[in-house]
Amino acid sequence: MINAGILGGTGYAGIEVVRLLTKHPEVNIKYIVSHTFAGQKISEVYPSLRGICDIRCEELDLERAAECDVVFTALPHGASKEVIPKLFEKGLKIIDLSGDFRYDDPAVYEKWYGQKHDCPELLEKSVYGLCELHRSEIKTHTLIGNPGCYTTCSILALAPLVANGLIDLKNIIIDAKSGVTGAGRGLALQNMFCECTETMKAYKVATHRHTSEIEQELSRLAGEEIMLSFTPHLAPMKRGIFATCYANLKEFKTDEELVEVYKKFYDGERFVRIYEAGTLPEIKHITGSNYVAIGLVADKRLNRVVVVSCIDNLVKGAAGQAVQNMNLIFGLPEETGLIDAGYYL
Amino acid sequence: MINAGILGGTGYAGIEVVRLLTKHPEVNIKYIVSHTFAGQKISEVYPSLRGICDIRCEELDLERAAECDVVFTALPHGASKEVIPKLFEKGLKIIDLSGDFRYDDPAVYEKWYGQKHDCPELLEKSVYGLCELHRSEIKTHTLIGNPGCYTTCSILALAPLVANGLIDLKNIIIDAKSGVTGAGRGLALQNMFCECTETMKAYKVATHRHTSEIEQELSRLAGEEIMLSFTPHLAPMKRGIFATCYANLKEFKTDEELVEVYKKFYDGERFVRIYEAGTLPEIKHITGSNYVAIGLVADKRLNRVVVVSCIDNLVKGAAGQAVQNMNLIFGLPEETGLIDAGYYL
Amino acid sequence: MINAGILGGTGYAGIEVVRLLTKHPEVNIKYIVSHTFAGQKISEVYPSLRGICDIRCEELDLERAAECDVVFTALPHGASKEVIPKLFEKGLKIIDLSGDFRYDDPAVYEKWYGQKHDCPELLEKSVYGLCELHRSEIKTHTLIGNPGCYTTCSILALAPLVANGLIDLKNIIIDAKSGVTGAGRGLALQNMFCECTETMKAYKVATHRHTSEIEQELSRLAGEEIMLSFTPHLAPMKRGIFATCYANLKEFKTDEELVEVYKKFYDGERFVRIYEAGTLPEIKHITGSNYVAIGLVADKRLNRVVVVSCIDNLVKGAAGQAVQNMNLIFGLPEETGLIDAGYYL
Amino acid sequence: MINAGILGGTGYAGIEVVRLLTKHPEVNIKYIVSHTFAGQKISEVYPSLRGICDIRCEELDLERAAECDVVFTALPHGASKEVIPKLFEKGLKIIDLSGDFRYDDPAVYEKWYGQKHDCPELLEKSVYGLCELHRSEIKTHTLIGNPGCYTTCSILALAPLVANGLIDLKNIIIDAKSGVTGAGRGLALQNMFCECTETMKAYKVATHRHTSEIEQELSRLAGEEIMLSFTPHLAPMKRGIFATCYANLKEFKTDEELVEVYKKFYDGERFVRIYEAGTLPEIKHITGSNYVAIGLVADKRLNRVVVVSCIDNLVKGAAGQAVQNMNLIFGLPEETGLIDAGYYL
Repeated sequence: MINAGILGGTGYAGIEVVRLLTKHPEVNIKYIVSHTFAGQKISEVYPSLRGICDIRCEELDLERAAECDVVFTALPHGASKEVIPKLFEKGLKIIDLSGDFRYDDPAVYEKWYGQKHDCPELLEKSVYGLCELHRSEIKTHTLIGNPGCYTTCSILALAPLVANGLIDLKNIIIDAKSGVTGAGRGLALQNMFCECTETMKAYKVATHRHTSEIEQELSRLAGEEIMLSFTPHLAPMKRGIFATCYANLKEFKTDEELVEVYKKFYDGERFVRIYEAGTLPEIKHITGSNYVAIGLVADKRLNRVVVVSCIDNLVKGAAGQAVQNMNLIFGLPEETGLIDAGYYL
Repeated sequence: MINAGILGGTGYAGIEVVRLLTKHPEVNIKYIVSHTFAGQKISEVYPSLRGICDIRCEELDLERAAECDVVFTALPHGASKEVIPKLFEKGLKIIDLSGDFRYDDPAVYEKWYGQKHDCPELLEKSVYGLCELHRSEIKTHTLIGNPGCYTTCSILALAPLVANGLIDLKNIIIDAKSGVTGAGRGLALQNMFCECTETMKAYKVATHRHTSEIEQELSRLAGEEIMLSFTPHLAPMKRGIFATCYANLKEFKTDEELVEVYKKFYDGERFVRIYEAGTLPEIKHITGSNYVAIGLVADKRLNRVVVVSCIDNLVKGAAGQAVQNMNLIFGLPEETGLIDAGYYL
Repeated sequence: MINAGILGGTGYAGIEVVRLLTKHPEVNIKYIVSHTFAGQKISEVYPSLRGICDIRCEELDLERAAECDVVFTALPHGASKEVIPKLFEKGLKIIDLSGDFRYDDPAVYEKWYGQKHDCPELLEKSVYGLCELHRSEIKTHTLIGNPGCYTTCSILALAPLVANGLIDLKNIIIDAKSGVTGAGRGLALQNMFCECTETMKAYKVATHRHTSEIEQELSRLAGEEIMLSFTPHLAPMKRGIFATCYANLKEFKTDEELVEVYKKFYDGERFVRIYEAGTLPEIKHITGSNYVAIGLVADKRLNRVVVVSCIDNLVKGAAGQAVQNMNLIFGLPEETGLIDAGYYL
Repeated sequence: MINAGILGGTGYAGIEVVRLLTKHPEVNIKYIVSHTFAGQKISEVYPSLRGICDIRCEELDLERAAECDVVFTALPHGASKEVIPKLFEKGLKIIDLSGDFRYDDPAVYEKWYGQKHDCPELLEKSVYGLCELHRSEIKTHTLIGNPGCYTTCSILALAPLVANGLIDLKNIIIDAKSGVTGAGRGLALQNMFCECTETMKAYKVATHRHTSEIEQELSRLAGEEIMLSFTPHLAPMKRGIFATCYANLKEFKTDEELVEVYKKFYDGERFVRIYEAGTLPEIKHITGSNYVAIGLVADKRLNRVVVVSCIDNLVKGAAGQAVQNMNLIFGLPEETGLIDAGYYL
């Protein structure tokens, strides 16, 4: 059994890691850190876990963490930069759910986060944990920068087009809609029920940090620098990301031809569902599961393609992908503990 | 492996049986009947199942059904009465999700359903599948009348009080609130999104059929006839039943004393969570899971107890309990395939 | 024109007073107090008001308040007790939306609020502002204790039965469900979108303060002391209260007979809608409006009546009733500015 | 008083016309046609209207219709083509909420609707009822093609950029999100509560008919033919459209400069709210009201502008604009009966 620790286990991403690990046949949850709820059972904080996972939240303690084989870190930024280098030194496998280890180049991090990177030397030793694109490197690393939710959904939607050189790289637009869990568990007026039900908004237009992750990965695939528009929206639902992506085709291709490109690109991928021409995914198709669902429409009139992509932001967009990364690192079948239909209803 | 058939597999209860069986380690889904979607893959009707369960829906065929070891029947009334007697004769194990086999006395059925019972002789051979109260009989039967959703939630909430003779039996009131999946998948104006979000209503006040199931079971526990008020409401959420039950105490007892009564009554029950004095369950504590969560407040001022009880109507209130019954019939550990935290978020 | 001030104008009750007054033909909004947003336009805090009401929020200043003819006070408790006596001395008409001036007897206040009443002498000079029951007294008072939301809904539901001596007073049960605006605008984890959508809970069971208001008013109508069960619940919607009330009939009466009793009791009431036998109200019938909608079912089997009652907690349960009180005090037609269908959709 | 008829008064657009007209000081609702509910009071179909509008729905009868001064037609297509020419001959003023009279060129209609136009000669005599762009023509016409909901939101968002020649016309993308009332009141599985809450989808990608209206109007403003991408989405809310529009700037301009362009373009417009640089509208800012709220962000990195625009699909996107058109036709102040803050909560 793999002994796992979750540092920051009572936030929305952290508790989803806990939920998924309770179903994982090869994992024993050994250690949950929560400063706010230290001393309480995790099943008191989230009573859905009662009888399933009743261990107590603890304060952060490096010695305790070091008893684990793997730690999932979902800590506030300050805590994170203290802890991760020390755990890394101790040889733990680390899957970090923050933005800190997602970049090839610290300058990009610094530009979008507005601060110096705390440990650029560690950044070099980390790998971007988007399993479908970095599988082989992930297997040989022990520090994983687990991708952002918008990012995963957007990159997987566009990767086949970019990698196959099918689109104009100057006019890519990603219009993404997220459920409210994406905003986390912190108290904020704008995330109160009465302030965000029956409404919708855009936020951080042209400035959202996930833009830089998307650009990094698509640029890598393209072999040239891509800059694109990414607009996040908040929709009145708990979970899910819906990304609508627009790109101009270099040469027109039909729905069927493009679907073939996608199927070939993702051949053998357990968690990628490519929709047949004429059908499109909806968020309820993947809620609660680790799948990404991708469909597309080629607009002959405009010689443009519209790709729509759905993930559950807490699963494939955070905790599920983190577990998928863990499986890769430990040499387990990649889908272990992750095959679940989720809940359409 | 147990070969299972689901007759009526594309309704909301049916598809939840499918979802749960895809996670069950001892079951092979062999046969899904859906008149409306015959010929289509179940994963085309519910794309959340894609890659997990892709078998095709079929028309009803008794010979095909007879290849199963167990069938879950969630058919419309007319179809049901044709089919179940024939399957019973063939020796199949049958778990019926309709109201047809939930009664000790056909006269009660006839009074509340307003029609003659179609096969009273089969009714005699069936057992009421409320696992926590009828476990030993369930194990020896092959035709199970799987309880209603409101029923399960209400009976389990009140059973300890009634069985221990702690309350006045003349003034029991159950005020229950249900999510909209309880109304099924049939088209109805009142269940359209715009007609049932941001609102609430009561329906079938004083006449809902589940009243009779609750009265039957509590009367049996009391050893005398109980008549009670049961009021169902529709709340703007997909899943969940919240039952608030009121009864006058014969003799005042504190929260702590009553909690002890409940803990003792449900000692060893895997799916019953009794809440400590001072805490109460919420629907999100059990959504997506087979648990029932029960809490209470003793009101000293009025010498009255208020018991609140939550289940997921599609799981413990339908498909989950059906699987629990299947486990009992087949001699499997009762919780096989059912231990799941559900989704708080 | 009546010059109106709203003290605490950016909370959910306060802003609803502002919204209603912008439609009132006889009122000029002169003064909005908000400590948090002082200096900002009210239409910056609530952009729905842009171009309709753009005055700036101010800090509390008694001299400024004294320029008004009427003030609506929706202040936090501490601020309220300082301010109201002084405004009263200055001769302003005051409609207070807190619980402070709703009681005949300070002892009742003290029992349920757990603290001494700050100005019992003022309490004597105030009147309970439930317009349908206290109309004539309201007209002659200048300090109105505007009723609670649960209270208005519950009292109006039961008043005809109690006043006509039709029910057993020992077994009254009120099971009430509220939208989340009832919890106010203060930050609280439990009122975050992800914590209260798709779920439901009961709270303050047997201890909610509104119980005492309901008991006071029904006792007055009965001519004897009534104690009853009141259970509030939170439902995943913004607005609305749905109260389901249970009482044992002294002598059985049919739906039609009871509906007649209600129609007679509320004869001429502009904001009370009594539903015909066989029909029941839903929250969407009154959302956004000042109406209360009441229907009932007589359960012959149990000799019990179930009354269901709906109001919009922010309108008839707070701001609308406050404006109705203002109309009464100023001798305007009671419905001035309040006839609005609300929004079914 | 203007006598108004609503043909198709019980659909979602029709009932919103009724709701708005009950508040209009110059209108008397004389005639409501509903085939389905003929004989019932409109307040039985929508109990929110009880005591406010209790007239009975009738079958369609041209003589009865001719007693009106104006009719709002929201009929199914077949009925519409029979009726409108006859009413037009009788000299009634007609505001049609269907797509039939929105086009300059019948060929465009035929291309997008896939059928011949039934009365091209009438089409010539109609005017496109987007008040802010066609005010003067509307005043002189008696047959108004009331614009679509997506259309109004999108055109008003982009008009200032197009009219001022600020953007590249080849790469305009409109990503729009709608509430479920936009799908109407017809029964459809996909619009059931359980099928569309907590999820999101795109539909009619590259083929939605509103595309053609948007292109017609923007082409007119540009003086050259524009083709653009328009993608509609369904979001889990009742009302509201949120359009996110992308265009490449010919020459970079700052947020402030662009806001000035918008303010100038919409100078004096009562129902257009231009947001200051740094702020963006949300749907709750306009829900229930006739306002359109527009904000923007200039993305210097990409030399692209993102415009976000919100309307209530049932008000400015249908019934409110219809009433605004009526006011124009009858020479009333354009805002009569329409100044309402809507409901932020």
